[in-house]
Amino acid sequence: MNMPAPSDLQIRPDGTLRHLLSIEGLPRSTLERLLDAAQTLRPQALGGTALRQRLAGRTVCNLFFEPSTRTRSAFHFAASRLGADVLGFDVSTSSTGKGETPADTLRTLEAMGVDCFVVRAREDGAVAALTAAAKPQTALINAGDGRHQHPTQGLLDMLTLRQARGEDFSNLSVLIVGDVRHSRVARSDIAALRTLGCRDIRVCGPASLLPDAGELQGCTVGHDLDAMLDGVDALMMLRLQRERMVEGLVPSLERYFADYGLDERRLARAKPEAVVLHPGPMNRGVEIADAVADGAQSLIREQVSNGVAVRMAVMLELLGG
Amino acid sequence: MNMPAPSDLQIRPDGTLRHLLSIEGLPRSTLERLLDAAQTLRPQALGGTALRQRLAGRTVCNLFFEPSTRTRSAFHFAASRLGADVLGFDVSTSSTGKGETPADTLRTLEAMGVDCFVVRAREDGAVAALTAAAKPQTALINAGDGRHQHPTQGLLDMLTLRQARGEDFSNLSVLIVGDVRHSRVARSDIAALRTLGCRDIRVCGPASLLPDAGELQGCTVGHDLDAMLDGVDALMMLRLQRERMVEGLVPSLERYFADYGLDERRLARAKPEAVVLHPGPMNRGVEIADAVADGAQSLIREQVSNGVAVRMAVMLELLGG
Amino acid sequence: MNMPAPSDLQIRPDGTLRHLLSIEGLPRSTLERLLDAAQTLRPQALGGTALRQRLAGRTVCNLFFEPSTRTRSAFHFAASRLGADVLGFDVSTSSTGKGETPADTLRTLEAMGVDCFVVRAREDGAVAALTAAAKPQTALINAGDGRHQHPTQGLLDMLTLRQARGEDFSNLSVLIVGDVRHSRVARSDIAALRTLGCRDIRVCGPASLLPDAGELQGCTVGHDLDAMLDGVDALMMLRLQRERMVEGLVPSLERYFADYGLDERRLARAKPEAVVLHPGPMNRGVEIADAVADGAQSLIREQVSNGVAVRMAVMLELLGG
Repeated sequence: MNMPAPSDLQIRPDGTLRHLLSIEGLPRSTLERLLDAAQTLRPQALGGTALRQRLAGRTVCNLFFEPSTRTRSAFHFAASRLGADVLGFDVSTSSTGKGETPADTLRTLEAMGVDCFVVRAREDGAVAALTAAAKPQTALINAGDGRHQHPTQGLLDMLTLRQARGEDFSNLSVLIVGDVRHSRVARSDIAALRTLGCRDIRVCGPASLLPDAGELQGCTVGHDLDAMLDGVDALMMLRLQRERMVEGLVPSLERYFADYGLDERRLARAKPEAVVLHPGPMNRGVEIADAVADGAQSLIREQVSNGVAVRMAVMLELLGG
Repeated sequence: MNMPAPSDLQIRPDGTLRHLLSIEGLPRSTLERLLDAAQTLRPQALGGTALRQRLAGRTVCNLFFEPSTRTRSAFHFAASRLGADVLGFDVSTSSTGKGETPADTLRTLEAMGVDCFVVRAREDGAVAALTAAAKPQTALINAGDGRHQHPTQGLLDMLTLRQARGEDFSNLSVLIVGDVRHSRVARSDIAALRTLGCRDIRVCGPASLLPDAGELQGCTVGHDLDAMLDGVDALMMLRLQRERMVEGLVPSLERYFADYGLDERRLARAKPEAVVLHPGPMNRGVEIADAVADGAQSLIREQVSNGVAVRMAVMLELLGG
Repeated sequence: MNMPAPSDLQIRPDGTLRHLLSIEGLPRSTLERLLDAAQTLRPQALGGTALRQRLAGRTVCNLFFEPSTRTRSAFHFAASRLGADVLGFDVSTSSTGKGETPADTLRTLEAMGVDCFVVRAREDGAVAALTAAAKPQTALINAGDGRHQHPTQGLLDMLTLRQARGEDFSNLSVLIVGDVRHSRVARSDIAALRTLGCRDIRVCGPASLLPDAGELQGCTVGHDLDAMLDGVDALMMLRLQRERMVEGLVPSLERYFADYGLDERRLARAKPEAVVLHPGPMNRGVEIADAVADGAQSLIREQVSNGVAVRMAVMLELLGG
């Protein structure tokens, strides 16, 4: 990890957003402005025609070097409900890219009139690297680069927490559970929580799935989930990729669930009003029990809805709609 | 087969449609209301902007667990000509579904603002089962589930028959030919014909491709096509999947065409004004001869056009547009 | 090669375009009318809503029998910025086509209301052949058929040349370099240059990648690139498919670049104001050096932008928008 914070790439001297590459380096004022905008957009985010003129005539391209129908759909809805044209360009299944550099693919689509690229990439930092190919007025949104960042997920998680617990994060206790080592979601969430003033960030997982200590400075780190639940306001459960078992990082899914799965018994150890988040897609019975996923404390579906609003807010800020 | 008629799932107490899952269990009045609506929509179904406000701001998702570009295109056109946003979500080729339940995939897309899901599934009854995951205001349309039902195909076939032969089906003789055993089209057509009062439904195919007798109660069943053509008003030819040969259910395509293929000679045995339907895609020279497929009695292209109108009618009824 | 010029198929008796199949057989007046229209559309081609009513309510289908995300995207943007509905129908990855003829696939989509098909096919002449299946009012655009033609690429290249060098091509020296034998781009460009009055067309490549002499009548043909650069106004570099190496037509990519790659040293031998074109996607370091691709004389990105305008002009002429 240890990517350089690309704040110089994503923030203009006047403080407005030029690209959205990482939560790292985003000033608190920018983060809060985006969250406020998303909250305002939220009632129109799921349908209707009220916002269709905002980005009418603009073009957004989902440029995916790694496949994802889920994230791509959320961006698709956000853009099209703002009236933008949306093109999906899946390089991972396309013949086009053969021998062509990602920069040339971007330049070509830009020359066709794309104003904003939503980019998912396999390598850490690949989206920031692509900004060098873009014209000054073209905006890039990082929709996930390797294990590095997934900033709109970080934003939607913060929006969901704010709706549940209010805007003051200073007295909030947040516990992140699971495969933090490989998770761009966790990295974005931790950065966002820090920026918003959260002082009690707890990180829990098996040693094989935690990152180097340097990345978690200021966080309380541990391996015993039951011991870390006391007083927790929010639990952020991470998806366990099944390949971790193949890689020998996890002995078995059953064992993982026994040690790190969130079930009702464990949830009862957190604060009574604690909320549960998960970025999806869920492995039910692996990192989360059905009763919790579908229970009253779960905000998982609300996260998804907030995700559309957050992406709208980001696009409007980037494209000045 | 023997799926429970899901009339309780698809019809509200006030008689309006909540989902469209099966022709089985649809009251005649509902069927006829949908056909009337489709007929009214038909002149605008293939283009123009007259209907673009009807579902403006609503979102339709083609959620396909089994690939189909053809049916998906028809639903795409129906929805977009009514002004809806349409998202194609192909689970069969997507990485998203990995480990995620179909219900969670639906709930996620629903949380993004999808109002109506067009669902194709491999298993009989899978679309009806998915309704349990949907919110009260979300509508599902079965676009084909296994061998069970394909209700919009049933509706478009009935609309095509009505246009050719009038609304009174009581004196109509309809002959369905081919692989009825594996055909959701045949099941939907038979149910629709029964509901609309057709009293002479004939079913013809090799024993290996006919369903259990219980399914065909009230139909005239036989294996000799030439012997069943007399007095027929409409021939509904079914597609023969080539895999039936691999499975040993059909000796050869040549043999099948000799026994069950519709050529001009055979068509001449039906009524002079008999019409020919086929759900597509056609295997020319297998279940139908070129001269019949492209002949004056063929309504095959009209079926396709009616398919757009029927799907518009269903969406408008479901979404109250 | 030696396809019959399909002028009878693509031009109506009144001189208007019915299909766009080939640059061969297009009268100069038609070519120039399309280029003039594209030039007029160019300022609106990359975004905005000014043209959205032109094809509102019309439907364009990208019917691709050979995959191409790049060309498909250009047509997608052209159609959608004119307000048309666009459907992508990728037969190469679809299950639909199984056993269905291309003509039936076209007829089916036409029956759903498609007004214009953009067709890419593997076989020379396949798009012209498909016109026989279409209704009189349905238009086809050849988006590349085998090694035969790619007429919108020819048009966009001519538009790019005109912008750089003016409308009089009679004193222009154009050099086409590379795999002419397998290139539909080269065939379209040569035909367009001839029709527009260009008298000095030079073609350079290894003997294994040049077509039969009969195809290049009137062109200056050679194998020594350095010897052919003198006085050249425009260089049209062709993409080298890597499979040519597997086929033994090219010894190595390094060797190819040494002999036929365009670098700064070579470019300096052409006229000082010479421009460089490439249809994309580029193999940097194979047929073109970075310094040239990204240099001041490169019009490669301008070609891409012109490609949207040209496709708009063609669709408007075909659909009478």
